[in-house]
Amino acid sequence: MAEEKVVVKHVLLAKFKDDVSPKTIEELIRGYANLVSLIEPMKAFQWGTDVSTENLHQGFTHIFESTFESVEGVAEYVAHPAHVDFAGIFLSALDKVIVFDYKPSSLP
Amino acid sequence: MAEEKVVVKHVLLAKFKDDVSPKTIEELIRGYANLVSLIEPMKAFQWGTDVSTENLHQGFTHIFESTFESVEGVAEYVAHPAHVDFAGIFLSALDKVIVFDYKPSSLP
Repeated sequence: MAEEKVVVKHVLLAKFKDDVSPKTIEELIRGYANLVSLIEPMKAFQWGTDVSTENLHQGFTHIFESTFESVEGVAEYVAHPAHVDFAGIFLSALDKVIVFDYKPSSLP
Repeated sequence: MAEEKVVVKHVLLAKFKDDVSPKTIEELIRGYANLVSLIEPMKAFQWGTDVSTENLHQGFTHIFESTFESVEGVAEYVAHPAHVDFAGIFLSALDKVIVFDYKPSSLP
């Protein structure tokens, strides 16, 4: 039943502080992406900047989505020293943040 | 170069108003999912409720992610009568909403 395994998506919306330089933002994104190679339960990572036109992005500029195979996997990630170290630096560069975890379903 | 085609993810975070019943929420989710069959550029749909433990979800309770093949596809979706009709009903049931579109990249 390999096809049936649970996936948990970990979504982070970010607005960087105005005084954080593009170079620093690039380094932080690189640091975030690098967690995939350091934290076993983190299975995938993707990110992007807002290209919406509906003007409902509420000032958020970046999104980060990582993939786990269980909520326990997310908990292991959150508690992992590599994440704790990175999160301390990353969160201090943000003006606004939302973190949302969910198990994707295509069914209503 | 079929593998190179652009994907645009359209993410909506929602907090329903307190007086919106679970039954109405279910109907709204069904209506959202049904847009896939009505609007050609909308290629996929998934949703979920928050299962995060970091307490950074800022009150948001639901996430909806739909997939397009271009930003023009998103624009076509936004302007489509089926979306306009549904969005009028859906947004009126929400306390808070964020809409964020992005082209996912796994590279820093």
